Amino acid sequence: MNINLKENERIDDLEYNGLKIIQDKEGFCFGIDAVLLSDFAKKIKKDSIVVDMGTGTGILSILLSEKTNLKKVYAVEVQEDVCDMANRSVKLNHLEDKIEVMNLNVKDLLTKIDKNSIDVVVTNPPYKKEKTGCINIERKKLISRHEILGNLEDFIMQSAMILKQYGEFYMVNRVERLATIMELMKKYKIEPKELRFICSKVNKAPSLLLIKGVKNGKEYLKIQENLVIYNEDGTYTDEIYKIYNKKRGKEE
Amino acid sequence: MNINLKENERIDDLEYNGLKIIQDKEGFCFGIDAVLLSDFAKKIKKDSIVVDMGTGTGILSILLSEKTNLKKVYAVEVQEDVCDMANRSVKLNHLEDKIEVMNLNVKDLLTKIDKNSIDVVVTNPPYKKEKTGCINIERKKLISRHEILGNLEDFIMQSAMILKQYGEFYMVNRVERLATIMELMKKYKIEPKELRFICSKVNKAPSLLLIKGVKNGKEYLKIQENLVIYNEDGTYTDEIYKIYNKKRGKEE
Repeated sequence: MNINLKENERIDDLEYNGLKIIQDKEGFCFGIDAVLLSDFAKKIKKDSIVVDMGTGTGILSILLSEKTNLKKVYAVEVQEDVCDMANRSVKLNHLEDKIEVMNLNVKDLLTKIDKNSIDVVVTNPPYKKEKTGCINIERKKLISRHEILGNLEDFIMQSAMILKQYGEFYMVNRVERLATIMELMKKYKIEPKELRFICSKVNKAPSLLLIKGVKNGKEYLKIQENLVIYNEDGTYTDEIYKIYNKKRGKEE
Repeated sequence: MNINLKENERIDDLEYNGLKIIQDKEGFCFGIDAVLLSDFAKKIKKDSIVVDMGTGTGILSILLSEKTNLKKVYAVEVQEDVCDMANRSVKLNHLEDKIEVMNLNVKDLLTKIDKNSIDVVVTNPPYKKEKTGCINIERKKLISRHEILGNLEDFIMQSAMILKQYGEFYMVNRVERLATIMELMKKYKIEPKELRFICSKVNKAPSLLLIKGVKNGKEYLKIQENLVIYNEDGTYTDEIYKIYNKKRGKEE
């Protein structure tokens, strides 16, 4: 496979069905959040047209293409160099017919995508990640609350515009944003329907949340049992093994 | 103690420090929700002025008077006969100096209570409860979504009006109302600050939530670890024993 790597880049194993990802050694490393979100969203209908808002290195689009029978993902990313990496990762995984990387600010989505045309939006909105460790649910402090607030509102507002009636919206985010997420989803008529919290261990406070909304859906929220990453002894739980499609004792 | 009981009434033990409650045999039995809410709200400041919105039989006000050093609770209840029961329960527990029962619709709160005058609001808003069992977190289906929606908005709007700047709001409710609760709290500027889910067993989906908001508070929500009622073997968890102020093996 002839994929050029830049000096600052490396190829990492996504630890799922042999998928690979090109990442910047000094940049943000993919985290468990994208993996868990791809699993949370894996029941989307066959032949769905999907938009991945702020795809970064493309991990979410790549995983979702592998886990589902979607027709097409438009993987939207504002940073040109990151788009270039995502594009090469798409080729590396032979997913060119499934994934189209778009170098675009989420705010300008309607210049490329029609209103009410998309079945599913998935998004792992940008927040600063720890550089270290690929299985890591800790996050750096947000640099600016207001900047992030704006971004989150843009992401949700734009999603509402491109989604079809009853189109689905899937997001991973930090738990402390929950109230604002709910407020914005309600504001833009993406009704919160399913919510799942992710916690490191069983009796710990959750750090991340997975949320599913439905455009113009009826009001009824289901909260699932927590998704727990580690057993008490520090090994991964059975559910995490299942999500990574691995058998116990076969860890690399 | 000379407390008159009507034909349809009985006195139940609140199973906390010898407190008693008068309840209608055919009416709604108090549930674990009020007990858990009183515990969730127990760190309110000394000498707080509290309003208990929709107090019903008065259980929340009675427990909170015992668990905290509050100065006064105004226990507001719209049903006259239920108010009468609550009043007799207050006397039964010698809490007349702490609790004032008010026969009032929550919508008319400002006819009796000044704007921006209250330190803390606690509320277990009315939803149909199972008649059976006092430790029971199951609930009957809501009769009317719209009726309840109206009620919830009234409760939150009125709370926002009577609370002082940075006054605290504590509520227990069903998890499926979370998105609406968040939306309404944001709308009326009671910022959600703490959230705790209650689940029957450790790996189960939660059924109830406890939420704390602060009037005009800064945006930052903390989600606590789940509050679990039962161990795997069906016995109560240590936390439930602690909340009921009991020692293991001393169950009645």
